[in-house]
Amino acid sequence: MTRWALKLEYDGTRYVGWQRQITGASVQSVLEDAIAKLEGRHTPVTCAGRTDSGVHATAQVAHADLARDMPAEKLLAALNYHLKPHPVCILAAAPVADSFSARFSAIGRAYRFKILNRPARAALLAHRVWHLPRPLDIEAMQEAANHLLGRHDFTSFRASSCQASSPLRTLDRLHITRAGELVEIHAEARSFLHHQVRNMVGTLRLVGEGRWQPDDMARALAAKNRSAAGPTAPPDGLYLIRVSYPDDPFK
Amino acid sequence: MTRWALKLEYDGTRYVGWQRQITGASVQSVLEDAIAKLEGRHTPVTCAGRTDSGVHATAQVAHADLARDMPAEKLLAALNYHLKPHPVCILAAAPVADSFSARFSAIGRAYRFKILNRPARAALLAHRVWHLPRPLDIEAMQEAANHLLGRHDFTSFRASSCQASSPLRTLDRLHITRAGELVEIHAEARSFLHHQVRNMVGTLRLVGEGRWQPDDMARALAAKNRSAAGPTAPPDGLYLIRVSYPDDPFK
Repeated sequence: MTRWALKLEYDGTRYVGWQRQITGASVQSVLEDAIAKLEGRHTPVTCAGRTDSGVHATAQVAHADLARDMPAEKLLAALNYHLKPHPVCILAAAPVADSFSARFSAIGRAYRFKILNRPARAALLAHRVWHLPRPLDIEAMQEAANHLLGRHDFTSFRASSCQASSPLRTLDRLHITRAGELVEIHAEARSFLHHQVRNMVGTLRLVGEGRWQPDDMARALAAKNRSAAGPTAPPDGLYLIRVSYPDDPFK
Repeated sequence: MTRWALKLEYDGTRYVGWQRQITGASVQSVLEDAIAKLEGRHTPVTCAGRTDSGVHATAQVAHADLARDMPAEKLLAALNYHLKPHPVCILAAAPVADSFSARFSAIGRAYRFKILNRPARAALLAHRVWHLPRPLDIEAMQEAANHLLGRHDFTSFRASSCQASSPLRTLDRLHITRAGELVEIHAEARSFLHHQVRNMVGTLRLVGEGRWQPDDMARALAAKNRSAAGPTAPPDGLYLIRVSYPDDPFK
């Protein structure tokens, strides 16, 4: 048996999320089905960040233990063949030590949230962005975002369904940029609470539209109460873009 | 009656193309149906570039004569409302002179063709790019592309179904760039023959993969024979990105 690390890209639109569920197709079930075609048996996979329904990934990382021995390029080609026609593909595959866990070995996760900020709704980017027609003040949003940097109790930005044992997280980066009509919010931390990025984005939107002042973000954080922050942003604009390990398996 | 110029974005994946056909939904039929809901009667629209099935647009231009009088922002919002849930939207609307024709007044068209050049097939960009796994030599492609610049008989790159009276066209720009795994081909001319961009791209691919030398492009052009050039690239990667007029209606 060899443990493999896999780097995945997927369009999360039509899935119930990463995790296998009885209610519909998941990214995990699609990947496990492709591996079963290769291995001839069910093989569980574990991922770094269990994305919700509608959330995308450009670089999710998962691991699985495979009995068949083959070079990385062959495994990549075979899995991509068996993943057709699903909007899920393997970008890289690398053998790793048995002690490697896509989830528990990860020391950093980066997400990008894309907002289409223009009067007309999305056509080419439908299901890929959050459409907000009112012009966003990204300088005010950045000022608000800076209040969230560092180690805090993020209860105000945590889903009620969150299973983490502690609401304490260290937010390393929350950076907002604009390129024409596309506003992007880049978030980095060792790990995030459930819905944390979407709840931060939904609150930053209030600041961007001038309904909140940047300082209101500090008050929302200090309240340690979910109802003190803004609504959850939709999943469409969210992308898991990087998972970091002490020793990058794909380098 | 007021003549309106409309700028449109659309995802061409599920349409039979721009033009109304009995075989399925077209961008034209979706737009005319939205206008009919506003006007209470069928109103024909004319576009600058009749894109094929699967071809996208970030800035198609069309015109229509509307009886209802309203400010441009209201027309834009009303049409976008009636266009839901189709992946077609109006980016801008402007009243124009009755002599304006989206098609015949146009003096330039620009297309972009996107190629995903990496081993793994497209997931997030499925139906948005042409996936070519072999590494492309874009310097060789640019050298080949330069042979096509200027005024030529483009019979070798013209679809047999092309209805243009002359195969002569003046290609003003054919520029190839790479940003990571994305290769883009930018083409500009007053007008193009049917399938001309896709046939040029399909031939440039042969050069990029080393199967043709750059000079072979000059020989393919000189042959004035469709079979002398490469196969037609798929529509997925093609986008109509700009239409130019002597007096920009949306300025």
